[in-house]
Amino acid sequence: MNPPTRHTLKDRDSKYVWHPLTQHKLHPHAMPIARAEGALLFDEDGKSYVDAIASWYTCMYGHCHPYILEQVGQQMQRLDQVVFSGFTHQPAVDLAEALIDILPFGQQKVFYSDNGSTAVEIGIKMALQYHANRGEKRPVLLAFENGFHGDTFGAMSVSGLSVYNGPFEAYFLQVERIPVPQEDTVDTLIGRLEERLAKKDVAGFIYEPLVQGAAAMKMHSATGLDKLLALMRTHGVLTIADEVMTGFGKTAAYFASDHLQTKPDIICLSKALTAGLVPMAVTSCSQQVYDAFYSDELAKGLFHGHTYTANPLACTAALAGIKLLRSEETWGQIRRIETAHRRFDDTIRSHQKVRSTRQCGVIYALDLDIDMERYGNLRDRLYRYFMEQGVFLRPLGNTIYALPPYCISEAQLQKVYDSIASVLETL
Amino acid sequence: MNPPTRHTLKDRDSKYVWHPLTQHKLHPHAMPIARAEGALLFDEDGKSYVDAIASWYTCMYGHCHPYILEQVGQQMQRLDQVVFSGFTHQPAVDLAEALIDILPFGQQKVFYSDNGSTAVEIGIKMALQYHANRGEKRPVLLAFENGFHGDTFGAMSVSGLSVYNGPFEAYFLQVERIPVPQEDTVDTLIGRLEERLAKKDVAGFIYEPLVQGAAAMKMHSATGLDKLLALMRTHGVLTIADEVMTGFGKTAAYFASDHLQTKPDIICLSKALTAGLVPMAVTSCSQQVYDAFYSDELAKGLFHGHTYTANPLACTAALAGIKLLRSEETWGQIRRIETAHRRFDDTIRSHQKVRSTRQCGVIYALDLDIDMERYGNLRDRLYRYFMEQGVFLRPLGNTIYALPPYCISEAQLQKVYDSIASVLETL
Repeated sequence: MNPPTRHTLKDRDSKYVWHPLTQHKLHPHAMPIARAEGALLFDEDGKSYVDAIASWYTCMYGHCHPYILEQVGQQMQRLDQVVFSGFTHQPAVDLAEALIDILPFGQQKVFYSDNGSTAVEIGIKMALQYHANRGEKRPVLLAFENGFHGDTFGAMSVSGLSVYNGPFEAYFLQVERIPVPQEDTVDTLIGRLEERLAKKDVAGFIYEPLVQGAAAMKMHSATGLDKLLALMRTHGVLTIADEVMTGFGKTAAYFASDHLQTKPDIICLSKALTAGLVPMAVTSCSQQVYDAFYSDELAKGLFHGHTYTANPLACTAALAGIKLLRSEETWGQIRRIETAHRRFDDTIRSHQKVRSTRQCGVIYALDLDIDMERYGNLRDRLYRYFMEQGVFLRPLGNTIYALPPYCISEAQLQKVYDSIASVLETL
Repeated sequence: MNPPTRHTLKDRDSKYVWHPLTQHKLHPHAMPIARAEGALLFDEDGKSYVDAIASWYTCMYGHCHPYILEQVGQQMQRLDQVVFSGFTHQPAVDLAEALIDILPFGQQKVFYSDNGSTAVEIGIKMALQYHANRGEKRPVLLAFENGFHGDTFGAMSVSGLSVYNGPFEAYFLQVERIPVPQEDTVDTLIGRLEERLAKKDVAGFIYEPLVQGAAAMKMHSATGLDKLLALMRTHGVLTIADEVMTGFGKTAAYFASDHLQTKPDIICLSKALTAGLVPMAVTSCSQQVYDAFYSDELAKGLFHGHTYTANPLACTAALAGIKLLRSEETWGQIRRIETAHRRFDDTIRSHQKVRSTRQCGVIYALDLDIDMERYGNLRDRLYRYFMEQGVFLRPLGNTIYALPPYCISEAQLQKVYDSIASVLETL
């Protein structure tokens, strides 16, 4: 029991805390969350909110999962942290094996770091140095328009969402953007790219496979992406799949790359990797990528490392998460959510306020037939409406999307759908 | 009890794990660490090693500290993770207050992230956007020669250690390097800088105050640094103290900046912040910096955010760590280590194999009178010698340094000194 304080947590928060992705003058107050369990968040008054986006796609097996807590609780009695340069430990090795076992064919090495941005920075560094180590000068990276890959300078460089990058664009890496492929546009795109790639100056191509998360769950053609990836391979361009959002079952496969024929050279993972417990990330790669760094020359190594790399608690949480991911129960839940999304979509997609809808696995998105700013007033009104209804949804501009934890109950999921259906009547 | 496996952990590690800062061809095997307690690491055979660098300056109160584990264990039953944009929670607010209470005068806002590199990226973005938001074009950053600030592209740009940056230098931000100030050089440096700063194109100056960690615990003059900082302030250059290594008591003050008159505008923290439990970082800043982002214009906000920002478990570990840091027991330990280092130094500094020694708080460094490569054979021989003696020390080139956890016992500390003294006899 905490002693009483003179000031509310909300007031104390606004005195000292600078929140991410927040213009505090326009959004002065953050709402305190006191606890979480399964698919629910609870505020200080005990009111519950269905966590319909799994706290940014992390807690996919539910908040405070007893099995994960038990495993991490045991690990922290044994080994909290040790330098991962020169040393190793059981959780890191077990996790590497567990990952390689479920990752797309061809992934052979696991490089640990702390978040999606660092996983991407490492992917970029692997791609650039891979060619440099082989004596080829390839300074250019390709990335999709409206992609999002993180907030550090390297990760920002490959991101195409200007809301995040505005003041920093003058400082970026050399990146060229290409449109996402759709069935009817991919052949023209391929033609254009063949010419571009002939210059042999492109080191790597980074992409969110099938679903662009921060772009508001925009989806593109698997066939089209496959053609692009095959083309990249022909021209010696390393392909970097950013599966930070899409990984660990969300597309109804372990990874979005499982839906594609051409497998990536490098894969970036985070978010659901640690099942919502603590930060961690992984950049995995093929033996071919690794071999370009394996040398008698010290300087050909990858001299990247964060202090808490492969933190034993994070590795343990991730291992526990993968065990849950591989259970029959989880795949039953994924199928159930897929079906429920489809049924809801049947009832809503022809609503006059709905411009279009789309679905991939447990990811469901709906565009309103109204233009609005990404962080504008109307978007805020929607957000508040959902919270009043006891549902945590975070519209991105005119897109409402749900990405529920796998453990969500039918009643909780119905509550999410009902709140979306009813908000349409308020517009 | 784990079931028996066909392969040793060491073999399994080398099959799938790509370690940080490692050329695997030259260093094919990582050594498994099974558990840790207090100042000790234990290998699979139960042999103990004194963790004489506190696992990269993180576990300063000792590994697996019961108070920290108890606090984190309780927190993870309540709230594991929640989006920190729009929401807040008790551990984040409590930690912000606890930090502001011990940070140098003038720090007012706390921005959370995941590691030292991201703390630095955020510091850089604050400095660049601060001027941009005020309508001033200041694209240049200043940094010390041989500084180290992290491995993401922004953080690499300000780092001056070429071993880490080699293949990526073509991609960096606009950074100019200045030498660290010493008593006899600072006035010339000031003269040169006054001319340079008159161009009004410098946004920020980033520095490791008093001790440059990765440069092998190089130390510079507090008086000199103070003059530099005062000059920067006169010219509207934001000062960014990277206290990722120096913070939380290591210099025998809460922060190295406490030894200086001119306080920084921005401070980067990580490593010991979470007492060695899980990754987290903080970039704190003054009200003046924050105010430049506080606006009716959405785009003047800082659109940076990592998914696990202000992770409740990490905040709880940090709070528990600060409680330990503020105890009389810890300050008694710090004074004891300081005194012990000085006594040891008296016995060793005139040894014929010793070129020079230096100390700041619990940080002790000794340069051998032998030239060697940062990651070369002789350095590896020293490393192996220490490990054979049951001491984990990580020489950087010809520098041997110790930065023990505060809880180290006198006998353990003596073991560290004895191993350093005896290695000199093998050279």
